[in-house]
Amino acid sequence: MDGEKFSVEAGKPIRCKAAVARKPGEPLVIEEIIVAPPSHHEVRVRIICTSLCQSDVTFWKLKDLPAIFPRILGHEAIGVVESVGEDVDEVVEGDVVIPVFLPDCGDCADCKSKKSNLCSKLPFQLSPWMPRDKTSRFTDLKGEVLYHFLNVSSFSEYTVVDTAHIVKIDPSIPPSKACLLSCGVSTGVGAAWRTANVEAGSTVVIFGLGSIGLAVAEGARISGATKIIGVDVNQEKFEIAKKFGVTDFVNVGECGDKPVSQVINEMTGGGADYCFECVGLVSLMEQAYACSRKGWGKTVILGVEKSDSLISLRCADVVGNGKTLTGALFGGLKAKSDIPTLLKRYMDKELELDKFVTHEVDFEDINKAFDLLLEGKSLRCVIWMDKQASYSKGVRTS
Amino acid sequence: MDGEKFSVEAGKPIRCKAAVARKPGEPLVIEEIIVAPPSHHEVRVRIICTSLCQSDVTFWKLKDLPAIFPRILGHEAIGVVESVGEDVDEVVEGDVVIPVFLPDCGDCADCKSKKSNLCSKLPFQLSPWMPRDKTSRFTDLKGEVLYHFLNVSSFSEYTVVDTAHIVKIDPSIPPSKACLLSCGVSTGVGAAWRTANVEAGSTVVIFGLGSIGLAVAEGARISGATKIIGVDVNQEKFEIAKKFGVTDFVNVGECGDKPVSQVINEMTGGGADYCFECVGLVSLMEQAYACSRKGWGKTVILGVEKSDSLISLRCADVVGNGKTLTGALFGGLKAKSDIPTLLKRYMDKELELDKFVTHEVDFEDINKAFDLLLEGKSLRCVIWMDKQASYSKGVRTS
Repeated sequence: MDGEKFSVEAGKPIRCKAAVARKPGEPLVIEEIIVAPPSHHEVRVRIICTSLCQSDVTFWKLKDLPAIFPRILGHEAIGVVESVGEDVDEVVEGDVVIPVFLPDCGDCADCKSKKSNLCSKLPFQLSPWMPRDKTSRFTDLKGEVLYHFLNVSSFSEYTVVDTAHIVKIDPSIPPSKACLLSCGVSTGVGAAWRTANVEAGSTVVIFGLGSIGLAVAEGARISGATKIIGVDVNQEKFEIAKKFGVTDFVNVGECGDKPVSQVINEMTGGGADYCFECVGLVSLMEQAYACSRKGWGKTVILGVEKSDSLISLRCADVVGNGKTLTGALFGGLKAKSDIPTLLKRYMDKELELDKFVTHEVDFEDINKAFDLLLEGKSLRCVIWMDKQASYSKGVRTS
Repeated sequence: MDGEKFSVEAGKPIRCKAAVARKPGEPLVIEEIIVAPPSHHEVRVRIICTSLCQSDVTFWKLKDLPAIFPRILGHEAIGVVESVGEDVDEVVEGDVVIPVFLPDCGDCADCKSKKSNLCSKLPFQLSPWMPRDKTSRFTDLKGEVLYHFLNVSSFSEYTVVDTAHIVKIDPSIPPSKACLLSCGVSTGVGAAWRTANVEAGSTVVIFGLGSIGLAVAEGARISGATKIIGVDVNQEKFEIAKKFGVTDFVNVGECGDKPVSQVINEMTGGGADYCFECVGLVSLMEQAYACSRKGWGKTVILGVEKSDSLISLRCADVVGNGKTLTGALFGGLKAKSDIPTLLKRYMDKELELDKFVTHEVDFEDINKAFDLLLEGKSLRCVIWMDKQASYSKGVRTS
């Protein structure tokens, strides 16, 4: 402890600034809100910085359920524990934490198993509430409830997060890099590292070279893949993708009469060892399966399609080709154990995070981050709550 | 070597008895045929005994391609090498071998990899010919070509098999048990052991309690599964299945309005660790996936549906449930390395094979074996070429 009294507000509501999504597709409104103190198994976190992920934009644009307004979006972040509720012994005030949308309670059969990252005690839902008591910790100055988002709601100076959704990290790690592991980059890197377990020397195909796809490439690169084929409709993405380890490019628009799977089967002499679908289109999921290698090809679905869409596979292929189809939330990572490992690999200069940060803005300019992502100009735009403030203020270092 | 001259016929055609399938669905005809000497990379094998598998019956009944007549069916067997062709150094005359429908050349990327059992040098096809030169080694006494079946054609006193399709085994193993590992029992046991890698303490569901399903149960049992749920429409099968480790039974006809997957999800508290489809019905494949456990459930498809049938899975399930779908030919086994391992486990009294043999007949009564299988009375009927003959005649023991 550095001797400072960390929280003069512990146990009391905090009045602070937040960027509220009041109506679908309309600019977020920076306004003052009230953040209640943390309840049982909850912590209140002062956000240091947050970054914008595609899911924030999706739920900001969406007019119908599961979108709901007014809401505090944001789910990639890093912060400092301001105060803790009852029954919290995992962190104390001043700890630096990363919030994560996917729970890791540590107690249930899934969290105790190495094979699952889908907590069964607090199963992940697209809920607008805190996970345990299904209420909100946010109100505006008129007393109206503001909804939570993905168990994080980081577009606020302070937020309340369940302990199942926080990971304590080494405070010496640069916050604008650490926050990236809160969702998107972890999802891609984890899918290559944990879900697929990409081996050195293997061939990888990535459908969709957005941030998730590039993170898959980074995960495949650090796993030693020797051929990483990016598939996209935008040729310009190849230049960016090269920085992430992508070695070859297939422009879907230039495949002529051939299905893209056939082009890749020809390029790879019979299919890739690992295929990742990062777009969310059934047709590409089926193409990914079709160009995974007979005998051992593994296809990992990361893109989110409409919930009632169906992937169709020929039974004869499933029985006879020895291929595997799977999917992953959060790249199959177990948040509390795997995020610290990835951060160590970043500090050891194996995992490169800096190249994902293409832009940085101040909190009051958060709508610029939306514009940049919508225009396809940014990979990750880091939004600083108060860049001038000392990051270490209130941080527990021992 | 026991000093006997093994093959007086080496290099010459052999005249011997075979059971020829001349027309779809009509009784096999025992007649004399001519078996040519083995060509490059081939061996001629004297069959000791052979057993009847469902695929023999399927291709015997089928009127159209890939069925073809006249043909020598049979693909589960054990025999003694009578003579070898050129470029054969893996076996010599007198070696005891099991022929296998699936090739294992030992040279290609797949055969060298631990991850695949789908040889890419001599890829498995439903061909009526020898795999390398696409000709037959069988003619009848009128000179008409008789077609091969599944690279084995064991319903003959002598057959010719490519070296990629033979496994040399310990001659001390009882032949009527060893021959079972040539196809069906290996497929089921291998699916549990190799493809799914069933862990001790796990829960397994098996759709279809025919021989393959029971072999899956046996594989799950020796892997230490504690709950093995059999699913079938025939209640009587449960009594038989208990001998193979099945602990619980679900009669599909008695599930009422509930899908069978829901019944199993309720029985297992959220799904089974491993699900196996051994029937070949798309609807059951989808049900198997639906009752595999969220987080780590693995579904293995073994049943063969019509080649143009499609399995359809909800995209949202694939992305969000952490489940895996795969399939296997020959249970994912690599014939030359895994069959000797399974036979050792049989000799060590871990793997039980005796209970699969429900009937034995002499070669001239081969059509009784078909009747028994069609009537649902047999699991495996062993067909002896000459049960009175000394098994060890011509067998190389050192």
